Amino acid sequence: MTEITRKDGRSPSELREVTIERGWSAQAEGSALISFGNTKVLCTASFTNGVPRWLAGKGKGWVTAEYSMLPRSTNSRMDRESVKGRIGGRTHEISRLIGRSLRAIIDTKALGENTIVIDCDVLQADGGTRTAAITGAYVALADAIEWAREKKFIGQKATPLIDSVAAVSVGIIDGAPMLDLAYVEDVRAETDMNVVVTGRGLFVEVQGTAEGAPFDRRELDSLLDLALGGAADLTAMQVAALGRDSA
Amino acid sequence: MTEITRKDGRSPSELREVTIERGWSAQAEGSALISFGNTKVLCTASFTNGVPRWLAGKGKGWVTAEYSMLPRSTNSRMDRESVKGRIGGRTHEISRLIGRSLRAIIDTKALGENTIVIDCDVLQADGGTRTAAITGAYVALADAIEWAREKKFIGQKATPLIDSVAAVSVGIIDGAPMLDLAYVEDVRAETDMNVVVTGRGLFVEVQGTAEGAPFDRRELDSLLDLALGGAADLTAMQVAALGRDSA
Amino acid sequence: MTEITRKDGRSPSELREVTIERGWSAQAEGSALISFGNTKVLCTASFTNGVPRWLAGKGKGWVTAEYSMLPRSTNSRMDRESVKGRIGGRTHEISRLIGRSLRAIIDTKALGENTIVIDCDVLQADGGTRTAAITGAYVALADAIEWAREKKFIGQKATPLIDSVAAVSVGIIDGAPMLDLAYVEDVRAETDMNVVVTGRGLFVEVQGTAEGAPFDRRELDSLLDLALGGAADLTAMQVAALGRDSA
Amino acid sequence: MTEITRKDGRSPSELREVTIERGWSAQAEGSALISFGNTKVLCTASFTNGVPRWLAGKGKGWVTAEYSMLPRSTNSRMDRESVKGRIGGRTHEISRLIGRSLRAIIDTKALGENTIVIDCDVLQADGGTRTAAITGAYVALADAIEWAREKKFIGQKATPLIDSVAAVSVGIIDGAPMLDLAYVEDVRAETDMNVVVTGRGLFVEVQGTAEGAPFDRRELDSLLDLALGGAADLTAMQVAALGRDSA
Amino acid sequence: MTEITRKDGRSPSELREVTIERGWSAQAEGSALISFGNTKVLCTASFTNGVPRWLAGKGKGWVTAEYSMLPRSTNSRMDRESVKGRIGGRTHEISRLIGRSLRAIIDTKALGENTIVIDCDVLQADGGTRTAAITGAYVALADAIEWAREKKFIGQKATPLIDSVAAVSVGIIDGAPMLDLAYVEDVRAETDMNVVVTGRGLFVEVQGTAEGAPFDRRELDSLLDLALGGAADLTAMQVAALGRDSA
Amino acid sequence: MTEITRKDGRSPSELREVTIERGWSAQAEGSALISFGNTKVLCTASFTNGVPRWLAGKGKGWVTAEYSMLPRSTNSRMDRESVKGRIGGRTHEISRLIGRSLRAIIDTKALGENTIVIDCDVLQADGGTRTAAITGAYVALADAIEWAREKKFIGQKATPLIDSVAAVSVGIIDGAPMLDLAYVEDVRAETDMNVVVTGRGLFVEVQGTAEGAPFDRRELDSLLDLALGGAADLTAMQVAALGRDSA
Repeated sequence: MTEITRKDGRSPSELREVTIERGWSAQAEGSALISFGNTKVLCTASFTNGVPRWLAGKGKGWVTAEYSMLPRSTNSRMDRESVKGRIGGRTHEISRLIGRSLRAIIDTKALGENTIVIDCDVLQADGGTRTAAITGAYVALADAIEWAREKKFIGQKATPLIDSVAAVSVGIIDGAPMLDLAYVEDVRAETDMNVVVTGRGLFVEVQGTAEGAPFDRRELDSLLDLALGGAADLTAMQVAALGRDSA
Repeated sequence: MTEITRKDGRSPSELREVTIERGWSAQAEGSALISFGNTKVLCTASFTNGVPRWLAGKGKGWVTAEYSMLPRSTNSRMDRESVKGRIGGRTHEISRLIGRSLRAIIDTKALGENTIVIDCDVLQADGGTRTAAITGAYVALADAIEWAREKKFIGQKATPLIDSVAAVSVGIIDGAPMLDLAYVEDVRAETDMNVVVTGRGLFVEVQGTAEGAPFDRRELDSLLDLALGGAADLTAMQVAALGRDSA
Repeated sequence: MTEITRKDGRSPSELREVTIERGWSAQAEGSALISFGNTKVLCTASFTNGVPRWLAGKGKGWVTAEYSMLPRSTNSRMDRESVKGRIGGRTHEISRLIGRSLRAIIDTKALGENTIVIDCDVLQADGGTRTAAITGAYVALADAIEWAREKKFIGQKATPLIDSVAAVSVGIIDGAPMLDLAYVEDVRAETDMNVVVTGRGLFVEVQGTAEGAPFDRRELDSLLDLALGGAADLTAMQVAALGRDSA
Repeated sequence: MTEITRKDGRSPSELREVTIERGWSAQAEGSALISFGNTKVLCTASFTNGVPRWLAGKGKGWVTAEYSMLPRSTNSRMDRESVKGRIGGRTHEISRLIGRSLRAIIDTKALGENTIVIDCDVLQADGGTRTAAITGAYVALADAIEWAREKKFIGQKATPLIDSVAAVSVGIIDGAPMLDLAYVEDVRAETDMNVVVTGRGLFVEVQGTAEGAPFDRRELDSLLDLALGGAADLTAMQVAALGRDSA
Repeated sequence: MTEITRKDGRSPSELREVTIERGWSAQAEGSALISFGNTKVLCTASFTNGVPRWLAGKGKGWVTAEYSMLPRSTNSRMDRESVKGRIGGRTHEISRLIGRSLRAIIDTKALGENTIVIDCDVLQADGGTRTAAITGAYVALADAIEWAREKKFIGQKATPLIDSVAAVSVGIIDGAPMLDLAYVEDVRAETDMNVVVTGRGLFVEVQGTAEGAPFDRRELDSLLDLALGGAADLTAMQVAALGRDSA
Repeated sequence: MTEITRKDGRSPSELREVTIERGWSAQAEGSALISFGNTKVLCTASFTNGVPRWLAGKGKGWVTAEYSMLPRSTNSRMDRESVKGRIGGRTHEISRLIGRSLRAIIDTKALGENTIVIDCDVLQADGGTRTAAITGAYVALADAIEWAREKKFIGQKATPLIDSVAAVSVGIIDGAPMLDLAYVEDVRAETDMNVVVTGRGLFVEVQGTAEGAPFDRRELDSLLDLALGGAADLTAMQVAALGRDSA
């Protein structure tokens, strides 16, 4: 399979260049500007004391996420959802996915009655915005938790983060499985799958969709293999980005 | 695994009682009232000539879907989305899933410039509403296409339906994989997966989510096995329901 | 007048076939699937303790109603109000009418500080949906009150229901007064009137509208006569439906 | 019945002081500022060529109406519907009533493919705002039609107005039928009825509601008698207001 | 400059005829119907005890304003913002301007924890609606404060009003500065400026916009001169209107 | 005045550090990431052929703008306007200001029937976001016009840009006029003014507001002096940023 060359010269199992600019925001408790090739997502984590009313008094914290694209992050300008007065289905779906992915690695009891809101705003889009968002959001989340520990909003020995989390897309193009699809690849993919994996290599989400022809069990297996490999690479980059400053 | 007994007496790999009341609606071009145990979904297919503006002039048809729950389909009453003035993320997500699942088995060229809107309204909910909706929607869709053929809105030899499609939920409860979760099972599941499968046994969608602990590759494999078996049973029931009247 | 024969063979003063499937819903405290000919409305009554804030502390209960039509309940598909993001005037008007009609026969003091929300969802529409909704809603309401009595949420001797209520449409077609108009009759009617009547034969609402030519006092009188007769028949069917199980 | 004296000294069958300031607006094609006692409604009629798309090409015109209350027209300030982002059920209901009432006296063929939008804005409210609105709207409508005739937008011999229309409220207070209820009377009424009557004395709308106890046939009859008398008085005032200038 | 004559015969530095009908509303605590030529704005002030939650417990009051135009206040009918379901940018902007202008002359401590909501509804528009609104709103506000003093909701010696406020438009037309533009002048103006001035002659707001060509410092100066003169005239009229009854 | 030192060490007439990262976006036809100290705004210009329907066929182009803040651009997180379902007054106001400012330097005839939409998204906010947005938007606009010239969408000799435009805030703090207020200064300012100036030194907008005490003519004059100086500096930076590549 490795003899196939992609438009940008990558091998099928190679990620695009990934950069994580940790602490980009001077305002947020945690933040990261992450890029997967030309895809750039600004992730911020906002920590506040207290939880939504429906969760109050249970000794548990809350982590939620909102995803959005700037109107000209894409090749042709999209209308703003604020102007349309309603949030589209795709935005809802991705916001919910990011939130679930982060909650899967959080011990809400250890977080205490505190809330962390993750905002993932796509500044530039070239495929894989949701997977970049999840991968960057984890870095912002980790820093917000460190910030809260320093401020003594959570206990010094509490470990709200029980694992790390990263995400990557995989797809089948012209019959061949590929890792981390750029936009030009994504639109041609017969099958498109987003996989969210913890640092320990366990699945949090597997979302595979036949965009063209339905896929069989063998194709599914090869996509999962690729995704686990890519996620392990992203986990290593998260560790490096958080390396020196966080405990 | 078969020694485990479920609350309702089913084996882990057993569907709930499924009934398909084909042609329930006197108004729609195709319809089915489907039940998976206590879950009851009314599926209608509305056929109209013409396509949305963005698709006009391409010689292709369009199939889309909308999902909704009656306010008291659930154990405690939910507010109507029409009253709230906005559609929630879950509703959006499921409507999009149903639409994609049906389009995966449609040859839009053979459909011609016609539109079929599928409405799936949950009259009573007891887990698995989205999978029941997809399974019933296929029956309504098939009948709407037959209706259009009789009306000569599509060619007599055109075959817009290139396969059939059904869906089922699977999950891991207390470490054991289970098929077709009822609501009481769904809330306890560590992992919850919805799988959409064609009549030929190919995957259209695989959506697995770790609600509790992340899952490993082996667990994923056993869930996929269960789902393929359940989907095959549902396909047989669809064939039976459509059997005598449709070509 | 009786020599006139209607399309469906009824005499001018004859109701369509009415069926009341009491207790249709496994979830709601009270429910009925009512049909007036091809018009089918699912009515549920949801009982909850407590009242809206503006009524709190007055020792009174609250009954309210919401009406809605499934998008393909009608001959051609209508857009969902949840998708449009706003409720139309007709829906508002009918919801308010149903609520007022039920409150007219409720002793809110006897109900105590409890709320009953009635949902009337039209599954199939063929004229007279609002009158079928009111007639079925009474059955659902009566059962929800019995349920609350058994649960001891209201006193054993409290009688929140001070009467029963039913509704029927009447209209003038080609100069002749007719009872319980089907859709094909409704669109041709010069005058259309909905009349809500208690079991004791008193008026709760009289809403007459000249769709074509204005009407005179004599025509109004004959319509009221017809309506009182039809309402009495519906009252008898409600009594029969509630007969054996309710006190 | 005449020995009963009302708070403001009127007899049961007496209207409040009614004034009609015709041509109040310098902008609209027709307008009237009408008062029923302290209730003041500004009615404007806006004439435009053309009709809504759904009516185009049928050679018919369209008349529609919108009703609204200024936030401090009432004793305590109400929130604006524009601020709330949605129109309430009561506003919808009254707008639709005004529109239907005016269309009942319009020959839409004679109007040609032109549209008249009636706006009824309540500047001050003291009961009977919808009936004052209908009565004033007729004057505005008549003037807009005259304006269009002068501009030759409608034929010189066309008679789009086939009758006049006025409206009045009636109700039962302490068992006694009363005409034209002021706000303090309205809140005490057991039954409240709005009646729309043409200049020839025919009914366009009869909307009676039991606010307290249901009403019987005899009470209904006495309310209708009162309403026909009041409407005749209002018709005379409309004729006087339109007297000198209109044909 | 004075040799220029305007369409309506005014000199460049002359206001249109201004009338202030104080106490127009029988419902509001303070009110004024103000006209600047054909521009007519109904201003009401609604006094309530208490403040919005975010201000509670600080011993300060709150003054806010809402501006709106009736749909047919203008030459051609505009859609209602309540029907569109959203408030436009211009409405928001003017509401905020009126609120800021009034708060500039209020000592919120002296007002105590009370709220005054100003509603400015344009009944007829002919240019300068926002400046007429501010000028009339001051009169309504002053009367609402007097009302509250009489009701002892504010202290007898408290002076919440620390100054008066009025507003006027100025603009450059064909190179010449003009005061108080009527609509036909406004649409032709190269520069348009709204100036809000206190009774003592200090600026509260200066909002100048180049509608056509940008303007230079000398033009800006001459516009400010005109505005200060016009504002002084309006202040005198406010004093006269409030003269006899208010302290 | 120069002896006053500001928190960040600037003199009263000194701008914060300004950087303009031209061409930041790989997607937009023109773009700039501008910073005024810690305020960072991403400005993109999207060029499309054609104009809105209301402008079609007049041989003129259209330039419009939308402004928005990321939820965590500020010190504490704000709710998204897309989530709230409506755009706030401040957002509307600033979007309109940016649009007017840019249109003041555009010859819409020379632009031809083309549309340029400017998006100004505040990534980080520390006062002066609207003035940074206008200043950066001009650079994005200039580049989009150059792009269109190269693509031959506008004539080679057409000069749609008739001037440049920049904006700056000024205010009075503790009685002293200051240029380019940072957030901590802005909240303390008695008077706050935003001034939009062309490259030739003419005013496009002057928006001064008394936040605390009203201001007199002399203070207004000194603020205008400061603003003209700051705007000239910003113009020079725009020239430098556009220097080498643009004609």
